[in-house]
Amino acid sequence: MPKALTLYHAPTSPNSRRVRMFLAEKGISVPFVSIDLAAGEQHGEAYRAINPRRVVPTLVLEDGTAIGEVPAILRYLEEAYPSTPLLGTSSKDKAQVTMWERRMELEGFAAVMETVRNKIPGLKGRAIAGAHDYEQIPALVERGRQRIADFYADLEARLGEALFVAGDRFSAADITAVVTVDFATKALELAIPNSNSATRRWYDSIAARSSFAA
Amino acid sequence: MPKALTLYHAPTSPNSRRVRMFLAEKGISVPFVSIDLAAGEQHGEAYRAINPRRVVPTLVLEDGTAIGEVPAILRYLEEAYPSTPLLGTSSKDKAQVTMWERRMELEGFAAVMETVRNKIPGLKGRAIAGAHDYEQIPALVERGRQRIADFYADLEARLGEALFVAGDRFSAADITAVVTVDFATKALELAIPNSNSATRRWYDSIAARSSFAA
Repeated sequence: MPKALTLYHAPTSPNSRRVRMFLAEKGISVPFVSIDLAAGEQHGEAYRAINPRRVVPTLVLEDGTAIGEVPAILRYLEEAYPSTPLLGTSSKDKAQVTMWERRMELEGFAAVMETVRNKIPGLKGRAIAGAHDYEQIPALVERGRQRIADFYADLEARLGEALFVAGDRFSAADITAVVTVDFATKALELAIPNSNSATRRWYDSIAARSSFAA
Repeated sequence: MPKALTLYHAPTSPNSRRVRMFLAEKGISVPFVSIDLAAGEQHGEAYRAINPRRVVPTLVLEDGTAIGEVPAILRYLEEAYPSTPLLGTSSKDKAQVTMWERRMELEGFAAVMETVRNKIPGLKGRAIAGAHDYEQIPALVERGRQRIADFYADLEARLGEALFVAGDRFSAADITAVVTVDFATKALELAIPNSNSATRRWYDSIAARSSFAA
């Protein structure tokens, strides 16, 4: 029984895809409202009233409360729709999923995002997401390539010892990781290295899930 | 009834203080093991076996499972000790605390940390926390000062409309925010601007809590 939720998102936004995959895994369908990032709709007054950080996605609840930030949106959805848990089951499991999801974000997703934001002409003056404008720093692009190489090496090591990122079960950590891989591949042409066989095994299994297309 | 938990921490580490304050607010007492950061103990084999990212804090559970990353540790503690909730009560409240705690971290804590890590001679080659070494980038220090000024302005606006960072009630978002303020003040001499009266009112109320000294 979906509550009256609305997801403001952008089709090409990796952060939006994290939420769309999470919804798809849970089998929840909510109305989507697209924000046109190329046209700068996120900087307009209407969207800033919903999300002052000018980023997608935002989940708006039935009472009008706007929830920004992917981990906060996932937390709401997991609480509201507890079946098919994606943030862990026991206390220990929840802590481990939180830890691994965060590592995927800090070491992978954020590294790709920083590299893209400091590289692409269309993001000049928007090197950090949020309410304030910051100039690009070219040195971060070079560092970013090294960070992403390190991320791929660490992910390969992890997936050599565990079936999924957080352990035996598919979780939000896998969503963040696969969105990172696709984002790095598409935006920076940094695909999974050919020799990373554990990562390729894992990627193929994630790509076979119906949520992958969300 | 404390479970057999152990917290690896460092007395001067701001991330460790986030966990210590959280424990103190809940009235939980667990054994602490100090890691000597100045002596590089976090880079030694013994601690790397506990936390491969070579950062404090780490919470070790009774079965030996090591939980790294502050939000993961707080999640475990909140689940294991649900009285005195610090991560929210209803689904909506949990989402809002998660959002605000994360904003305090991304816009405040991470900005201070990045500035310090790229500035201090003792952190040469360790500009990013984690398993890999990255060189300092001086341009990040200048940008960091601007980010912290923006953080203070945004915090003042928020505390002009709400009693605590996440709303009516003290939460983990206040802990992250106050640790950020003290860290910026001590490490960078960037204290709360004198004219920020809402922030000063809030700070005084947090400093009066017994957890503040944790």
